[in-house]
Amino acid sequence: MGKFGMLLNTIRILLIVSAALVLASLAVAQPQHGFNLVPMPSSVQAGVGQLPVDRSFSVAITGIRDARLERGVVRFVAEFSRQTGMLLQQKPVGSANPTLLIHAVHGSEKAQKLSEDESYELVISRSGAKLTAPNLLGILHGLQTFLQLVEITANGFAVPVVTIKDQPRFAWRGLLIDVGRHFIPLDVLKRNLDGMAAVKMNVLHWHLYDNEGFRVESKRFPKLQEAGSDGLYYTQSEIREFVAYARDRGIRVVPEFEMPGHSRSLFAGYPELASGPGPYTIEPGGADAVMDPTREETYKFINKFIDEMAKLFPDDYFHIGGDEVNGQPWDANPKIQAFIRAHGMKNNQDLQAYFNQRLQKILIGYYLDLMWPTSRHYAVDPMSGAAASLNPEEKSRILGGEACMWSEWVTPENIDSRIWPRNAAIAERLWSPPEVQDPGSMYERLGELSWRLEWLGLTHRSALIPALHRMAGTDDVAALRTLAETVEPVKDYTRMSSLKTTWDFRGPLNRLVDVAHPESDQARHFRDSVQAYIGSGFTDRAAEGEIRTNLATWRDNDARLRPLLEQSFLLHELAPLSEDLSAIGVAGLFALDHLDKSAPSPASWRAQQLALLERAKTPKADLLLMVVAPVQRLIEASAGQTQKP
Amino acid sequence: MGKFGMLLNTIRILLIVSAALVLASLAVAQPQHGFNLVPMPSSVQAGVGQLPVDRSFSVAITGIRDARLERGVVRFVAEFSRQTGMLLQQKPVGSANPTLLIHAVHGSEKAQKLSEDESYELVISRSGAKLTAPNLLGILHGLQTFLQLVEITANGFAVPVVTIKDQPRFAWRGLLIDVGRHFIPLDVLKRNLDGMAAVKMNVLHWHLYDNEGFRVESKRFPKLQEAGSDGLYYTQSEIREFVAYARDRGIRVVPEFEMPGHSRSLFAGYPELASGPGPYTIEPGGADAVMDPTREETYKFINKFIDEMAKLFPDDYFHIGGDEVNGQPWDANPKIQAFIRAHGMKNNQDLQAYFNQRLQKILIGYYLDLMWPTSRHYAVDPMSGAAASLNPEEKSRILGGEACMWSEWVTPENIDSRIWPRNAAIAERLWSPPEVQDPGSMYERLGELSWRLEWLGLTHRSALIPALHRMAGTDDVAALRTLAETVEPVKDYTRMSSLKTTWDFRGPLNRLVDVAHPESDQARHFRDSVQAYIGSGFTDRAAEGEIRTNLATWRDNDARLRPLLEQSFLLHELAPLSEDLSAIGVAGLFALDHLDKSAPSPASWRAQQLALLERAKTPKADLLLMVVAPVQRLIEASAGQTQKP
Repeated sequence: MGKFGMLLNTIRILLIVSAALVLASLAVAQPQHGFNLVPMPSSVQAGVGQLPVDRSFSVAITGIRDARLERGVVRFVAEFSRQTGMLLQQKPVGSANPTLLIHAVHGSEKAQKLSEDESYELVISRSGAKLTAPNLLGILHGLQTFLQLVEITANGFAVPVVTIKDQPRFAWRGLLIDVGRHFIPLDVLKRNLDGMAAVKMNVLHWHLYDNEGFRVESKRFPKLQEAGSDGLYYTQSEIREFVAYARDRGIRVVPEFEMPGHSRSLFAGYPELASGPGPYTIEPGGADAVMDPTREETYKFINKFIDEMAKLFPDDYFHIGGDEVNGQPWDANPKIQAFIRAHGMKNNQDLQAYFNQRLQKILIGYYLDLMWPTSRHYAVDPMSGAAASLNPEEKSRILGGEACMWSEWVTPENIDSRIWPRNAAIAERLWSPPEVQDPGSMYERLGELSWRLEWLGLTHRSALIPALHRMAGTDDVAALRTLAETVEPVKDYTRMSSLKTTWDFRGPLNRLVDVAHPESDQARHFRDSVQAYIGSGFTDRAAEGEIRTNLATWRDNDARLRPLLEQSFLLHELAPLSEDLSAIGVAGLFALDHLDKSAPSPASWRAQQLALLERAKTPKADLLLMVVAPVQRLIEASAGQTQKP
Repeated sequence: MGKFGMLLNTIRILLIVSAALVLASLAVAQPQHGFNLVPMPSSVQAGVGQLPVDRSFSVAITGIRDARLERGVVRFVAEFSRQTGMLLQQKPVGSANPTLLIHAVHGSEKAQKLSEDESYELVISRSGAKLTAPNLLGILHGLQTFLQLVEITANGFAVPVVTIKDQPRFAWRGLLIDVGRHFIPLDVLKRNLDGMAAVKMNVLHWHLYDNEGFRVESKRFPKLQEAGSDGLYYTQSEIREFVAYARDRGIRVVPEFEMPGHSRSLFAGYPELASGPGPYTIEPGGADAVMDPTREETYKFINKFIDEMAKLFPDDYFHIGGDEVNGQPWDANPKIQAFIRAHGMKNNQDLQAYFNQRLQKILIGYYLDLMWPTSRHYAVDPMSGAAASLNPEEKSRILGGEACMWSEWVTPENIDSRIWPRNAAIAERLWSPPEVQDPGSMYERLGELSWRLEWLGLTHRSALIPALHRMAGTDDVAALRTLAETVEPVKDYTRMSSLKTTWDFRGPLNRLVDVAHPESDQARHFRDSVQAYIGSGFTDRAAEGEIRTNLATWRDNDARLRPLLEQSFLLHELAPLSEDLSAIGVAGLFALDHLDKSAPSPASWRAQQLALLERAKTPKADLLLMVVAPVQRLIEASAGQTQKP
């Protein structure tokens, strides 16, 4: 590792996507295999019958022997046990006639490379299964596929007879997690690594500091963590163990130390590096702080610092950010200069322009903190939009993409629900063939995957209830849950821009907006029922029944919820939402009664209700009521002129 | 630490209780403070008003400075943050005007002693709070009380103005966890330590091996863990860290290596120690194996082994079990001989008789694995029953009690629900004054404590849903949950004795009986509603409404559940229970209709229904339907003769 050994590899992934989305165009037909696999493999040939899996389940490994592979198999067996409640043999057994035979030809590189072959082949017959791969990374992916195939049947647990040949579409399938703004403990990050492995993602892009906190122990510059954090940071031994944990799961950890901007936490301990006079603290409200690029000391610091960090992070990629770290260190680094030549660039400026362009581009990537619905992320293809007009050589440089979890509003409690299950759809976009595009199939498979992800310790579903208990201060939160399940946080940067005071990273994150799911399943199902009912010409009784049950629950909910709202200062702000929900219930039922009798609703009533619904669409308490639009459709339909879709 | 240094302290706690319980006698009046505290402190004087707690909350420590105390305060602040969603200062601040002033006079003993003073005084006024204690153990307890006092109000978080003087009734308040039969990982044990600390328990009695597994790494005798376990054991460094974790929370870890019986796992590696010829394995079905007490080698082994283990477990108490370890080591140990003399015994036989008597007695202690309802455990007072007839000197030897979690049917997934919240009621019995006895108040406070315990990571409530998902193999488990919430596992040793094959510790634990809660809240609430309705002379409309809603849900549930039951081999066995539940719903509604109209139900119908209900009381799938008895009462009441209670 040379002096600037890692600097050269600061080349970020390019991901050129259009933010303009046309959801209507997505219903591309694709073969439905009936398998709940996410991401969908590139080739699935379903057979007939099943391979039963019971307590006699055994594994044998041929081909390369590798401690990482063996640990992967032990983990697989433990997962399998957890999924079935059967206590299986912890260690892979060299059985002559194993249930599952695993054969990997090669081990993986010492530091995982983009060029490694991640493909695998999984053949399941009625009598046994065989998983083969050129590289152990493929084995790890194939084992995840096997786990997703395990199903409960009337006769026991089983996997279907099937032949799967699978490989990723893109080599870089990343998740960025920002731990600068809010510290995220390693156990929370580890369960997210487990989730990433389950959906075959392979890069954790770790944003390790920002103005509000420096999160890594530096032994050379201890004031970095001492003055630059609220006491919450990762020690070097923790980082080493974490990187090994990720590597075991086929995931690379790419650290990001963004320089020279966003560096207030860095200057808290070392103000002499800053362009401005200081003093600097991690307190909120300060201006973005920038390194002084004209002082030799700055480069000496960067040099030593990166040298220390590079020992912790063996990955080829080591991100130091998108702004200017000019000339000197790049000139001094022969690998950087070689890279510049190899890529047909003339000089540092070219490299930096390339660099910045890439960085700008990735900023319209899959931003999970913007609270978009899964389908919207799913529709973004790295090769669509602006990328479609690239030439083949340029296209070949598109290595993949990243889901980004910026943490202004994120805590250890809610981070899982901000990442999952939406991240799995992004993982599918980056792994599966481009033809896999049907959002209906995606949502169906995601629904099944979502509860299975809970086996990994992820709390994206379960964390809601304790949070509601906290807000209500009592055990019975049924009515609060009913409201919570019909709302979503406001989108894009609305929350930040509607702040009346300076954003403060130490502010409490205990409102409903902090725990409400980014996408309301309840609202989506309701929308589907309304669609089915209207689409059937108002004859679909099952859909009508579901609509009616929902509307009646909402109508009655405000009366049940009111006492709770009055009792708790954190719930006061929800009163207008709760009233709107009940009003929507009343209005929807009135419309439904008219549709039921094929009697047009009064025009004056409709006008009044539609005005009410329009007001109900405005954000309140930074939340959006997601069931307004479908009720609007019911009311409009109750005019009686559009009996057929 | 002498050669037999720890052997002397094998004296277990005596706990003389009567298993015959008279629940009806328990409704002793006690002052209701309106505070959701468990265990109830010995003295609570409520004041007027509140102390608001917000982000400016600060702590100062006077009196002794002690790293353990400071870590306790950091943990307290972290808990406080989690409970409120406010990001508070992680480190206690030496504020001149703190919200909470903490003052401990002394530190705690190097290895915690029974004689230490655990009392504390907590005084909360409108302007601040002060927590004082003679020993830091009292501070740890007082901080837990403070956390339980935090409530959400219309204006913010607050604690009430109150003066609490508190001390434990018994010095030994223990929880036994058996990790021999089923290995329980340390993170699961740690969250249970957190739960114990929350309810002021102070002894973890750790049953570390049994026929089925030896769970501690021995460096002197590595075959103990290698041949004696399925690969799942605690390393010595893990144990040291775990003991320190417990100590930080004011909890002693008392290890138990039961000898000479239950030692099959021990003989797997060292067959020469056994009385029989061997070979020995941890495989199921083998006979209980006993050490050879006649060979000198046995004692050499025990000596070396205990010497090694004693270095890991600094506690005064070190349990080696209740059966005969004859003469020699006891004779060789001057401390044992001193103990014998000090307790007025004549010889080893006396000591052993004493020992065995104690052990037998504790076996009718608080056995959590027997699936008794909380109220039944709560009613058991260590000083009642046989103990009531002891003389004062004998009574003074009653040090407390233990809740026992034997793990024949326990996994990391379900252990929390077997321990919590019932263990909190036992903790109250062992901490609070004997007058605190009202089961109604206990259940109410426990209900609030239960969801708060989830902040500690305990899964006693949340683990049910993932388990139902596993059994059903699908996301929609609402109907299965309805059934699951009306049943309880069979009681006492019924499950073990109804086994058709030899019990096998490696058997799957994935049936409903494995995850159904030991006590059905749903059934208890339903019973209360029926009681209120009948008690009101059938005029309580609110109670009737709740009864009706429940009955209608149950009536309709079988039709909803049926497809799921057919699909999954793990659910087949629930079909008769599901049918019973629906039949009960129908019968109850019919009875209710008659009661509503004050019209007697037909006698022949009643006879038929009561016979049906009698059959519904028999266990099915190792489960009991807990809503039968109250419906029986409704049917009987519908005869029309007992209009008044």
